[in-house]
Amino acid sequence: MALITFLTDYGLADSYVAEVKGTLLTRVPSAAIVDITHEIPPGDIRSGAYVLGRAWKTFPEGTVHLAVVDPGVGTARAALAIRSHGHFFVGPDNGLFSYLLTAGPFEAVQLHGVDEAAPTFHGRDLFAPAAARLAMGYPLHMMGEALAGSPVLLGTASPRYEGKTVVGAVVYVDRFGTLVTNLTPEEVPPYAVLVSDDIEIGKLQRTFGDVSSGGLVAYVGSGGLVEIAVRDGSAARRLGIGVGHEVRASLG
Amino acid sequence: MALITFLTDYGLADSYVAEVKGTLLTRVPSAAIVDITHEIPPGDIRSGAYVLGRAWKTFPEGTVHLAVVDPGVGTARAALAIRSHGHFFVGPDNGLFSYLLTAGPFEAVQLHGVDEAAPTFHGRDLFAPAAARLAMGYPLHMMGEALAGSPVLLGTASPRYEGKTVVGAVVYVDRFGTLVTNLTPEEVPPYAVLVSDDIEIGKLQRTFGDVSSGGLVAYVGSGGLVEIAVRDGSAARRLGIGVGHEVRASLG
Amino acid sequence: MALITFLTDYGLADSYVAEVKGTLLTRVPSAAIVDITHEIPPGDIRSGAYVLGRAWKTFPEGTVHLAVVDPGVGTARAALAIRSHGHFFVGPDNGLFSYLLTAGPFEAVQLHGVDEAAPTFHGRDLFAPAAARLAMGYPLHMMGEALAGSPVLLGTASPRYEGKTVVGAVVYVDRFGTLVTNLTPEEVPPYAVLVSDDIEIGKLQRTFGDVSSGGLVAYVGSGGLVEIAVRDGSAARRLGIGVGHEVRASLG
Repeated sequence: MALITFLTDYGLADSYVAEVKGTLLTRVPSAAIVDITHEIPPGDIRSGAYVLGRAWKTFPEGTVHLAVVDPGVGTARAALAIRSHGHFFVGPDNGLFSYLLTAGPFEAVQLHGVDEAAPTFHGRDLFAPAAARLAMGYPLHMMGEALAGSPVLLGTASPRYEGKTVVGAVVYVDRFGTLVTNLTPEEVPPYAVLVSDDIEIGKLQRTFGDVSSGGLVAYVGSGGLVEIAVRDGSAARRLGIGVGHEVRASLG
Repeated sequence: MALITFLTDYGLADSYVAEVKGTLLTRVPSAAIVDITHEIPPGDIRSGAYVLGRAWKTFPEGTVHLAVVDPGVGTARAALAIRSHGHFFVGPDNGLFSYLLTAGPFEAVQLHGVDEAAPTFHGRDLFAPAAARLAMGYPLHMMGEALAGSPVLLGTASPRYEGKTVVGAVVYVDRFGTLVTNLTPEEVPPYAVLVSDDIEIGKLQRTFGDVSSGGLVAYVGSGGLVEIAVRDGSAARRLGIGVGHEVRASLG
Repeated sequence: MALITFLTDYGLADSYVAEVKGTLLTRVPSAAIVDITHEIPPGDIRSGAYVLGRAWKTFPEGTVHLAVVDPGVGTARAALAIRSHGHFFVGPDNGLFSYLLTAGPFEAVQLHGVDEAAPTFHGRDLFAPAAARLAMGYPLHMMGEALAGSPVLLGTASPRYEGKTVVGAVVYVDRFGTLVTNLTPEEVPPYAVLVSDDIEIGKLQRTFGDVSSGGLVAYVGSGGLVEIAVRDGSAARRLGIGVGHEVRASLG
């Protein structure tokens, strides 16, 4: 059975998500379509890349991931189909696939048919038909030209060292106000003390259950990165910080 | 495989959407149910009609579309099952099906069973069982009486001419703040200049990619109507207008 | 075909819902997954219990209901799998299953594998694999130890009598601002007059269609409990009350 996931910034109020699904199901009636999210803030490629970068890994090999956060629709940006880790990905060449492209080898083609698609709705008219074709087993290399050069990657700054301090940054804030950083457990050993501006968060704990209600806590989150949370509350509100803000780990 | 789409103003926080889906799946276990949206503003039949009027066309023939925006539930309004363009539609007779009913021939019946349904939840108790029956191939004419008279249609004003100006109106505002008008490309030739109040939007472009970021632009949208957008922004906010507001195209 | 419903407080913007679905579909590729809701306010076990308590009943026997509103994830609270009314339920032991556990007999086990799961994402790492196993027919009693003692139940105060008055309370407020009470039709006979603070709502009507637009009305809702609504408006806003607020029925 064909499995297609679907991520966009279309929101859930308009007809757009359904128009894409109708297009997919007209071509692959047996497809199971699973929404990743459609609540990426309009045009926020960086959030889309993070959410996609976590979600795709939980699906079985052969899944087709259709991802459209595409403020440049109708402009000269390329349209991609990608195979990586045994999964397929379809969407615009604007950095949306950064997390997976930097995580392993891939093949990418630039899709045919861009000129025939409605210039404001490539999700429905270009990407959905391409995803449907991949879901039916159509070979990747027949869907477009080999991509000249490499796909666009987001400039995701890695943590840097300042003396005995590792300086990372918040890369995502979730619904619970939890701050996901780009710090890995390798960079934050058990004796390191996390700090945001002048507020000391402390050493890594196992989970937010290790502090009492209202307590501020850092731990290695379910996506493998260091997160900062407030138990039964919002760390984003407590610390007043968001995506891009520095988080430091003092190593001694 | 039975395909059922589902549109309501129930929102996504309560149990109502799931209660309807459980009712459908109890009757048609193999049905694939696709949400169109459940975020129609409460009781906003006009928005529901627009969204349904776009979305259904992308689905294959034989699809059953269950649509419930029904501020008059429990009152004397009729309950409908409709066949049109090879698709089926189930929902209240209040204008929700206006776009498709004016787009081609149809058959409509007034559903049996209204009196036995819980008077506040026809979606679950009346419309879902009817949609399930249609999805299983039950004949339309056996589901109710032929409708006496025609279904309710929304008064959708067509554009009118004032000398050398075509006067249309905004019919929908989407998540991106794009203003969808009731003007068709036939009514707005390439030399026509679009105006909202005193603000000149200019001639039709191909897409919002044709202006720079922050620019105001009109083009023929993916639904076939003239739309007004701000690239990387919101035309609704920029122009301060919404549904029902006039938009003019000056022809010379 | 395996049917799994899914209720959480994860929201729809992050990757969490999709990570759970990917985990389920990797294990049970043919599963149909139906969202109940993911918009339970963060940590609001009481709302989750109410919504789940309504929705599960509409699904066919054998359905597996995965429900995760789990502010205590990673703490000592037990993880449950339950069979009741021919349905299966998986989630934390914190009161989320109160409505169904008080509605009939059940078997419950405390899940194995808690220690191996990521301590912040039991939905993906503990509950989803358990739900997948149940969906594949794995026997309940092999999934964990018989629960010592009874599951946690929410203290849901039943209506009480004060002389000739029944005193109930609001248990849920839906999207339309309708106030759902814990009063049953048995407790509110046709001659009883409903009152909120000093505002008289009147006797039970059949539906909100029985009053004119803007009118305040009480009736037996589609979930079997007395509800208070404003036709084409919000009773929660009109009366300025919410969950926990008293509602009285005067019997003479």
